[in-house]
Amino acid sequence: MAIKVSIVGAGSIGFTRRIVRDILCVPELQKTEFAFTDINPRYLDMVYQLCRRDIEAAGLPAKVTATSDRREAFKDADYVFSFVRVGGLEAFTNDIEIPLKYGVDQCVGDTLAPGGIMYGQRGIPVLLEFCKDISEVSAPGCLFLNYSNPMVINTWACNRYGYGVKVVGLCHGVEAGHALIARVLGLPQEEVDIICAGINHQTWYISIKHRGRDLTGALLEALERDAEASRTEKVRIDMLRRFGYFSTESNGHLSEYVPWYRKRADEILDWVDLSHWILGETAGYLRFCFQWRKEFEQDFPRLMQEAPWTFRPEDRSAERGSRIIEALETGRIYRGHFNVVNQGCISNLPPDAIVEVPGYVDRNGIGIPPVGELPLGPAAVCNATISVQRLAVEAAVHGDDLLLRQAMMMDPLTGAVCTPPEIWQMVDELLVADAQWLPQYEGAIAEARQRLAGGNLIALRPYVSPARLGATGPKQN
Amino acid sequence: MAIKVSIVGAGSIGFTRRIVRDILCVPELQKTEFAFTDINPRYLDMVYQLCRRDIEAAGLPAKVTATSDRREAFKDADYVFSFVRVGGLEAFTNDIEIPLKYGVDQCVGDTLAPGGIMYGQRGIPVLLEFCKDISEVSAPGCLFLNYSNPMVINTWACNRYGYGVKVVGLCHGVEAGHALIARVLGLPQEEVDIICAGINHQTWYISIKHRGRDLTGALLEALERDAEASRTEKVRIDMLRRFGYFSTESNGHLSEYVPWYRKRADEILDWVDLSHWILGETAGYLRFCFQWRKEFEQDFPRLMQEAPWTFRPEDRSAERGSRIIEALETGRIYRGHFNVVNQGCISNLPPDAIVEVPGYVDRNGIGIPPVGELPLGPAAVCNATISVQRLAVEAAVHGDDLLLRQAMMMDPLTGAVCTPPEIWQMVDELLVADAQWLPQYEGAIAEARQRLAGGNLIALRPYVSPARLGATGPKQN
Amino acid sequence: MAIKVSIVGAGSIGFTRRIVRDILCVPELQKTEFAFTDINPRYLDMVYQLCRRDIEAAGLPAKVTATSDRREAFKDADYVFSFVRVGGLEAFTNDIEIPLKYGVDQCVGDTLAPGGIMYGQRGIPVLLEFCKDISEVSAPGCLFLNYSNPMVINTWACNRYGYGVKVVGLCHGVEAGHALIARVLGLPQEEVDIICAGINHQTWYISIKHRGRDLTGALLEALERDAEASRTEKVRIDMLRRFGYFSTESNGHLSEYVPWYRKRADEILDWVDLSHWILGETAGYLRFCFQWRKEFEQDFPRLMQEAPWTFRPEDRSAERGSRIIEALETGRIYRGHFNVVNQGCISNLPPDAIVEVPGYVDRNGIGIPPVGELPLGPAAVCNATISVQRLAVEAAVHGDDLLLRQAMMMDPLTGAVCTPPEIWQMVDELLVADAQWLPQYEGAIAEARQRLAGGNLIALRPYVSPARLGATGPKQN
Amino acid sequence: MAIKVSIVGAGSIGFTRRIVRDILCVPELQKTEFAFTDINPRYLDMVYQLCRRDIEAAGLPAKVTATSDRREAFKDADYVFSFVRVGGLEAFTNDIEIPLKYGVDQCVGDTLAPGGIMYGQRGIPVLLEFCKDISEVSAPGCLFLNYSNPMVINTWACNRYGYGVKVVGLCHGVEAGHALIARVLGLPQEEVDIICAGINHQTWYISIKHRGRDLTGALLEALERDAEASRTEKVRIDMLRRFGYFSTESNGHLSEYVPWYRKRADEILDWVDLSHWILGETAGYLRFCFQWRKEFEQDFPRLMQEAPWTFRPEDRSAERGSRIIEALETGRIYRGHFNVVNQGCISNLPPDAIVEVPGYVDRNGIGIPPVGELPLGPAAVCNATISVQRLAVEAAVHGDDLLLRQAMMMDPLTGAVCTPPEIWQMVDELLVADAQWLPQYEGAIAEARQRLAGGNLIALRPYVSPARLGATGPKQN
Repeated sequence: MAIKVSIVGAGSIGFTRRIVRDILCVPELQKTEFAFTDINPRYLDMVYQLCRRDIEAAGLPAKVTATSDRREAFKDADYVFSFVRVGGLEAFTNDIEIPLKYGVDQCVGDTLAPGGIMYGQRGIPVLLEFCKDISEVSAPGCLFLNYSNPMVINTWACNRYGYGVKVVGLCHGVEAGHALIARVLGLPQEEVDIICAGINHQTWYISIKHRGRDLTGALLEALERDAEASRTEKVRIDMLRRFGYFSTESNGHLSEYVPWYRKRADEILDWVDLSHWILGETAGYLRFCFQWRKEFEQDFPRLMQEAPWTFRPEDRSAERGSRIIEALETGRIYRGHFNVVNQGCISNLPPDAIVEVPGYVDRNGIGIPPVGELPLGPAAVCNATISVQRLAVEAAVHGDDLLLRQAMMMDPLTGAVCTPPEIWQMVDELLVADAQWLPQYEGAIAEARQRLAGGNLIALRPYVSPARLGATGPKQN
Repeated sequence: MAIKVSIVGAGSIGFTRRIVRDILCVPELQKTEFAFTDINPRYLDMVYQLCRRDIEAAGLPAKVTATSDRREAFKDADYVFSFVRVGGLEAFTNDIEIPLKYGVDQCVGDTLAPGGIMYGQRGIPVLLEFCKDISEVSAPGCLFLNYSNPMVINTWACNRYGYGVKVVGLCHGVEAGHALIARVLGLPQEEVDIICAGINHQTWYISIKHRGRDLTGALLEALERDAEASRTEKVRIDMLRRFGYFSTESNGHLSEYVPWYRKRADEILDWVDLSHWILGETAGYLRFCFQWRKEFEQDFPRLMQEAPWTFRPEDRSAERGSRIIEALETGRIYRGHFNVVNQGCISNLPPDAIVEVPGYVDRNGIGIPPVGELPLGPAAVCNATISVQRLAVEAAVHGDDLLLRQAMMMDPLTGAVCTPPEIWQMVDELLVADAQWLPQYEGAIAEARQRLAGGNLIALRPYVSPARLGATGPKQN
Repeated sequence: MAIKVSIVGAGSIGFTRRIVRDILCVPELQKTEFAFTDINPRYLDMVYQLCRRDIEAAGLPAKVTATSDRREAFKDADYVFSFVRVGGLEAFTNDIEIPLKYGVDQCVGDTLAPGGIMYGQRGIPVLLEFCKDISEVSAPGCLFLNYSNPMVINTWACNRYGYGVKVVGLCHGVEAGHALIARVLGLPQEEVDIICAGINHQTWYISIKHRGRDLTGALLEALERDAEASRTEKVRIDMLRRFGYFSTESNGHLSEYVPWYRKRADEILDWVDLSHWILGETAGYLRFCFQWRKEFEQDFPRLMQEAPWTFRPEDRSAERGSRIIEALETGRIYRGHFNVVNQGCISNLPPDAIVEVPGYVDRNGIGIPPVGELPLGPAAVCNATISVQRLAVEAAVHGDDLLLRQAMMMDPLTGAVCTPPEIWQMVDELLVADAQWLPQYEGAIAEARQRLAGGNLIALRPYVSPARLGATGPKQN
Repeated sequence: MAIKVSIVGAGSIGFTRRIVRDILCVPELQKTEFAFTDINPRYLDMVYQLCRRDIEAAGLPAKVTATSDRREAFKDADYVFSFVRVGGLEAFTNDIEIPLKYGVDQCVGDTLAPGGIMYGQRGIPVLLEFCKDISEVSAPGCLFLNYSNPMVINTWACNRYGYGVKVVGLCHGVEAGHALIARVLGLPQEEVDIICAGINHQTWYISIKHRGRDLTGALLEALERDAEASRTEKVRIDMLRRFGYFSTESNGHLSEYVPWYRKRADEILDWVDLSHWILGETAGYLRFCFQWRKEFEQDFPRLMQEAPWTFRPEDRSAERGSRIIEALETGRIYRGHFNVVNQGCISNLPPDAIVEVPGYVDRNGIGIPPVGELPLGPAAVCNATISVQRLAVEAAVHGDDLLLRQAMMMDPLTGAVCTPPEIWQMVDELLVADAQWLPQYEGAIAEARQRLAGGNLIALRPYVSPARLGATGPKQN
């Protein structure tokens, strides 16, 4: 099968090189044509050289091209992957530092909370451009596989406003949690059957079985008994304790989605662990990204000197992107968890929400059976988030800053920490700082600039997080 | 038409005497038979004497009876009104004082927030008993008109678990807001057309028109210009400013439903007004109730000496209970706002929620046309509350304290103020304090009692509200 | 209130003159501006002269204009009425005579059955043009009141494909049946409460009450006892006997919608009555229309010589068009039955169907409360028809003759009488005969013409109806 | 895995022996315990002896028991299969012969049309008993696999009224059609991907693909070109021609579900083929059943003398019952077509209908992804049938003969052939003839008996089918 796979944001070397290898590990897909595109020509070229070298060394028939012309890359594509990060680290710094002044203490900040909301405002206009291009120049029925964060917010906008393009959002959280569950239960992962349902990053393992025996209720004790988990996953375990179901999301990320764990500076260290940024460090992911970027610049020559990658079945990663393509092209059934428009799949979440649920893929497409009702507590947590996501999507698409402000008001952590006037001022600051990536907010930004310049600003309560490591933290992977 | 109207909790003298008068102001309904019942024989008798005296003095054919046997009172009833308040002021004191120790600062506390949630735990078992009796002994098709708070939580439970009895929840908030809107717009109320939709106490005036001209967007300025409103309704006006639509709820009550206005003791006076308890006073309604009870005991002899009430059209109150009965019995169409199961009426609120929406009543029944989509921000506020209500209902019906604790977790104000361990301990305290009215929680209460006795309690952060007037506040009406 | 009402197909003198009078009987609406338009300038002028004369004689401030420029007439209109009949009597003759050759014996043939299906193919393109004009030049929110048959098929197309224009379909069948029911029950009509639900012409009186007493089950006996009804309404009474509920539709019209009564020539006289065309006469309405047209041409001078109409309350007809406008403009609540998109109102009919159900109108709009479940048998009858209507709508809009043929296949009477090859040939004949009014079928008509010219046609079974009176029947009103 | 599989109606030797073999061909299932039950002890014993002999000869650990005590057989069962045929050939003869007198000419008559409707009236009370037993004594979560016809009507009743038991209806029509499609397209079946959707026996191949290439539109020509198909499948090909999609159902069976092909005795031979009963022979399946029963009685000794069956993978049949169990127990994913409650799976069929659609089975259960919209014509055909099925189910469950009569009225073939009075009398005859199996209709049967005895019966039009072969037809398999 000579399919064409296009990758936008291909300069994300880790993602791109891995997805290329994953696809080429499937014998039927070794004639695939890859078309890379990125707005950063230097990174694009690095990734292109690496992948071409790998493919040629393996003697595969696959082809790879790189171009800064996105429509050229998308032309006749059967699949398009997006790894873009609109605004890069500069905007990301705003996403974290400005809210922190207002006491909104984020660990990751790329999905929900003020950081994720703003990230979506920047990303949606760009992703909708991708959809437009796909609808116009890609192969009919082209599938858009979105990895760009905030994944739900972006996928929601693309499904609703994306010119009819089929979009699925992908994330590896379900597998990571699945592995952890199997480990603490002391079982081989392949013997543990799970049904995981909710919304991305608030997906819940509502059924955990071993050979038909239900272990859902046994997990809390197993985690509490596990020395590592009980040290590093305190928020996550507490959520399991309170809500009865385990969530996919890592400790630090989870802690910023809810109002309970990061609102008091003097208690934050009771809940997070500073041994790895994902466990709750204030601004942890931002620090990691800067460090990672620095290292990557130095790494490229080394990667080219190392042995090229091989394409054996055992080389394939657990990432699901290539599994979907394999199933759609060969008909071998794949079961995974996908982010799709709900439409009744989870009966007690809104039909327009993007939910993460199990599905089956084969030559007939991606089939998502109904999940039914989510347990009430987890559903309540998801519903609070869904309101924020919907407001963020509509705000971004229509450039409506009142909806954007309402998204911030309804954000559980922001709402717990700030008052409405503070939120209004924080949004003003964010809009102005990100102005270059927010063309849809031109008018609102002008007004915000004026208000900020007019003085008469709210005096902020001082906030200093004991969970901030700064640029000096331990090297992360 | 010789209908039978039964009133449970008839000892609520204000409510009972007024509904009797309202009904008897309708000429076709003057043969109505009223059957009062209450668990407090003294209050029941007082009300009975008053009403009987009024009716006899007016020479009406209506009959009135009083009995402590509820099933006797409900027998063959066409309509049943509930005014009961399970637990009385003793339980209500717990609802307010215990959360206050944890920093959850309630003004009214009978609808949402910890107080309202606990009130529902006490009320639901009792109201379901009423429903059972109605289904067994009342006239087929008997309509249950519920005024007992927490109105939504109780009405939800009765609709879902109430043995098929038809239940409608009633409140006068829509009318009060309608009057305020007309006043600040300088228009006669009867010329101002409104569509109000949402959930009780978070119902929004989504359409305000004068002779076809849309004034919805003109209200903010009118309120800001109004000297009294801008002093007494600061939360309400701020919500209008942030969300674009005016809410039915009074300033103080509204402030306890959302996370933004009552979480910092040092700022609470910026938002509330202490000239009337409903405007935001801490524990205001509790203080008022104690004072009111004291006065009522002294008032009864005076009431009996005053002139009896008359039953002319102009004596009728704006309360909608009698309007519904009039419309159902005579066919004269009545348009009002009702609390009913959503079932798609507001398309972006859950189908099982109890919504407050416009409807039409005549001899064919109560008809509730679809409202469509609520604006996104108001819908988000309502959705957060609906999650709490659903958890509270299921907790109360099944005696499931984990769901009860989750309801508290998801309560916007509690979630903004407390941590999960604090919430757990607060619920323990509430369960133990209210034990006599919570038969469904027997096991959970025993465990809570043990935990509290075991010491090892969380040290609470001191909380003192500057908005508390204590028992010395000005007399209220 | 100076509203503008536009009438297209205004040359329908009966309809137009009556709606003008009905509106002007409402004091608040006497400043209305009427704008007439029609493609027949002669009829348009006649009606214009009559109405202008009436208004001037009454000294009302209303204005009336007539123009052949439809967009001019629609400009700034608040309400548009359509009375158009596309194809006139020439096409109508095809609708009746061609199917009759195939044994499909229609009495009216303007709503369902082959005649109604073809009528819709002609009307939909024209009505969608009206909608386009309304969306472009009429006042925002302009309401389109459609009286053009086939009412459901046309209203369905306008709601789904009509450029967002608000459309409601109107018919007087519910009132006529209501009057009949009251008469045979021996009760004043205003004391009989009805809920009527279904689809236009198959709407069922699912609740008939007198002062709260349910008489739904008493109707069959009352009709059987009634000498006139039991002679003239045999089909209708038989349907009530078999299905348990009375239908709005007249005897003859109803008989052509179902497979049971008109498929055997030798039994048709057992079910119909020839004293009035509407009671079942073969081609009865066609005969009546020709006769009526002849008389109207002669009548106009006489009408101008007669006394002008007056506009007192008692002059107003029972027709609901003016009631809707009155309620929307003055806020006086009106309850009537309307044809609207179902969207769950009748829970066991499809959401996209056009249903006829009770609704309330006031200044807030037209509100349609849920009806709930239709009884199973009546729902089954409606569902069969709805399938035909949906196919007819999609066929007409997309010019898809395969869907048109499927509509004919699924038509209950046609399906009972014909085989698929016969239906195919009958549709070929109908397409060719109506070619001038079916621009959307250009290709299919060319192919049909070839097939018909090619000989090799199916030999038809001879069919002669004993219920045909020809042009010699008694004069009808 | 030591699961327990219970089979009721186990005396159906073909079904029972095959399902036992199919299950035991799965290595993980060879410890299965089979519990047979039947009301016919002789057949039960025959099947028991055969199966025990097969298992013992193969040396498998499986166990088999036989008992006339159904609850004993169902005790702790993980799966229950039903093969019962209530009323046997005696009732089946009534199902066919009585309608034939009225011109309703059935070929199979066990699914829809008067025969299928009556079969459901007999079967539902019995199957609901099974469900009750399963809910009380079988293992929690026991799956009921229903093969008893009329499969949809029975499965509908069990899902709606079956005490919460999980029920899935199974049929092999989809596979048979799949094989035929592959054959006429000249492709290996495993390379042809199909999506088949609708209701059992009116399921439509809405997507036919070969390696991603869509062949749905190419099928008509392929079938017309095929000498055998064009001779034996005339109705089926004609339906494809008219509706655009191929149906699962065999020529003869399909012809009795629609109004177009069997209503005129003189044309029936244009559509059917007499070389095999399933191709359209009048009363063909009845004739075959009598012949088959005669042979079976003689066959048993021979079967016991033949070599026992073996249990290798290649011995397994295509029947899906064992595939479902394998997937649920081992987690190996199986894709098949299942009969389940619609609930939105096919968006334009009613939610309560039993639809036949693709699904995936693994250890997480049976997952049914949404199909979306069925093409309009096929949906219309299905909808007509669904109305009949719903009426038949509610009639049978409530013993409501008015609903039963309405089911007959709405049956497309009966409605095309008969008048209401004829249908009423035919139902009277059927009720009386089947009285011993219809306990729920006691009252209605007494009245019917009186009417029939009272004389005054309708004179029937003589009907003689040229497609009837009588008992002398060729031997069938």
